[in-house]
Amino acid sequence: MSTIKEVAAEAKVSVATVSRVINNNGYVNEETRKKVLQAISTLNYMPNEVARSLFKKQSKTIALIVPDIKNPFFPEIARAIEDVMSSQEYTLILCNSDGKVEKEIMYLDAMKQKYVDGIIIVTSTLTPKHIETRDIPIVALDRKISPDIPSVTVNNYEGARQAVQYLKKIGCQKIAHIRGPHAISNADERYKGFMKEVENEPWFHPELVVNGNYNVLETTEATKGLLTKYPDIDGIFAGNDYMAIGVLKAAVQLGIRIPEELSLIGFDGIQLSQLTNPEITTMAQPIYELGLTAAEQLLEMIEGKPLVQLHHHFEVKLMDGQSTKR
Amino acid sequence: MSTIKEVAAEAKVSVATVSRVINNNGYVNEETRKKVLQAISTLNYMPNEVARSLFKKQSKTIALIVPDIKNPFFPEIARAIEDVMSSQEYTLILCNSDGKVEKEIMYLDAMKQKYVDGIIIVTSTLTPKHIETRDIPIVALDRKISPDIPSVTVNNYEGARQAVQYLKKIGCQKIAHIRGPHAISNADERYKGFMKEVENEPWFHPELVVNGNYNVLETTEATKGLLTKYPDIDGIFAGNDYMAIGVLKAAVQLGIRIPEELSLIGFDGIQLSQLTNPEITTMAQPIYELGLTAAEQLLEMIEGKPLVQLHHHFEVKLMDGQSTKR
Repeated sequence: MSTIKEVAAEAKVSVATVSRVINNNGYVNEETRKKVLQAISTLNYMPNEVARSLFKKQSKTIALIVPDIKNPFFPEIARAIEDVMSSQEYTLILCNSDGKVEKEIMYLDAMKQKYVDGIIIVTSTLTPKHIETRDIPIVALDRKISPDIPSVTVNNYEGARQAVQYLKKIGCQKIAHIRGPHAISNADERYKGFMKEVENEPWFHPELVVNGNYNVLETTEATKGLLTKYPDIDGIFAGNDYMAIGVLKAAVQLGIRIPEELSLIGFDGIQLSQLTNPEITTMAQPIYELGLTAAEQLLEMIEGKPLVQLHHHFEVKLMDGQSTKR
Repeated sequence: MSTIKEVAAEAKVSVATVSRVINNNGYVNEETRKKVLQAISTLNYMPNEVARSLFKKQSKTIALIVPDIKNPFFPEIARAIEDVMSSQEYTLILCNSDGKVEKEIMYLDAMKQKYVDGIIIVTSTLTPKHIETRDIPIVALDRKISPDIPSVTVNNYEGARQAVQYLKKIGCQKIAHIRGPHAISNADERYKGFMKEVENEPWFHPELVVNGNYNVLETTEATKGLLTKYPDIDGIFAGNDYMAIGVLKAAVQLGIRIPEELSLIGFDGIQLSQLTNPEITTMAQPIYELGLTAAEQLLEMIEGKPLVQLHHHFEVKLMDGQSTKR
């Protein structure tokens, strides 16, 4: 039985390079990879005594990497992707990154090592470089990565503007915003849309924007602070529905009636927004269509077809609930 | 370059058998597998021109297969498992089976083919045979599979009894049950616990049990029908919190006040049960501990240690919310 050292000598590369080829992690250029595979073949090298498997070229599996599996938006979008993929006999596996770049990279590498055929990822932290060196079809969902990487997103800026315009239209005179985390592009865009509509209003001041961090409990606390300090707030635009649930909770705890005393509008249109009491008025994303489009785009890439359109950008739509005045 | 036919001839097996070994799907006995791997090695056979990878023995990856990623119970338990696994440098991948045996088998095979080191599965449909033939460490979570397969479950029967006892204690005189799907063991056990407490009550009749199918929308409809037909129902035990949210919704739509006119108690203790208005009184499972125990058990199996205890069974605990009278 030959050893990894002999393979390295035969291929005239380092042991580390052979290891990278065998485990398929880290960058190895194509030329070198071929030399290593040739040496493995010539020497009949089998790692771990017996090679445990020689894989099919196509695994018929794709991965979806999301930042927060507990935010119902992501399970809903996963379902849409799964429906498309199942019909094509693909298996979908789901990974939760916590929005941390180390975990994203770990999953990217783990997935590539396992030869998934492609990846759909929701990320605010990965850079184009992380992706290019990995040489696998990738679609960015919900948040763009770069002009070169295919994406499926919505018009967050316009959606946020429409939300605020609606609050004004129904008569709100002091509107606050619970924003998502800094440096997450959709949170930033929704914030900018909000600002565009309010920055010239005489009543506006920066303390009317607080950070709920896309987290329900943090939002409840932040909203309680906000409404206690500024009891004349009569409209809130929450950066997503998950946080809007936190706002509802805060209002109940403070004895503020929604929509009689306070109008609330969310963003996303998750199923849960229609299950709360009152139902949440929201800027609905076409969640199913987003998942479907990302899945179809990835399939085209896997099949090696040229993409007709690199970026898909959808509009959001007001879904009238019971959390805003009539 | 040799072909798959030559490998089959060399190993004296069929092409289909070689294919099963290469793709690692379907059953091949160990003797035959060795012969095929030997033939592959002797003939220098590389499927798809170049073998794309020779894998490490341990993938440091485990899979969690759940029936419904949209029920928040499963993302919550996934988080617990992920926390344990991350600390051991394992990657967790998540698969959504819809509770369908075909999808469960597909995932089992896909996961095994990708050499995950072990699987935690929530299933009501897989049989011991499905698992034994797959020869990979498996822990059954939430629902037992057989006496031989390690499991982590809760005492659903006792939990349900305690829920009904509590409703009686606070003065409910006609108690209904929204049950989960037939043939799902935890739903059946909770139903049996309910029945034990009510079957001898003079007010009880079988129409006080309806099936919400562990689905919010179905529950809302079923509950509306139930409360319209029997307006004197003053207590409901919902088979899980997800359905309890459907009951809240139904009550709002019918103008029935909770808890003033109707007391509601759920099961699970998901985070969401504390975010509704009113907060849901529930029989809380130790969700984090369940995930943690399943993860630890699986790790022991992966490391080849004997399990001190094959089955872990936890008690549930009343978590007092605002949906039951004081």
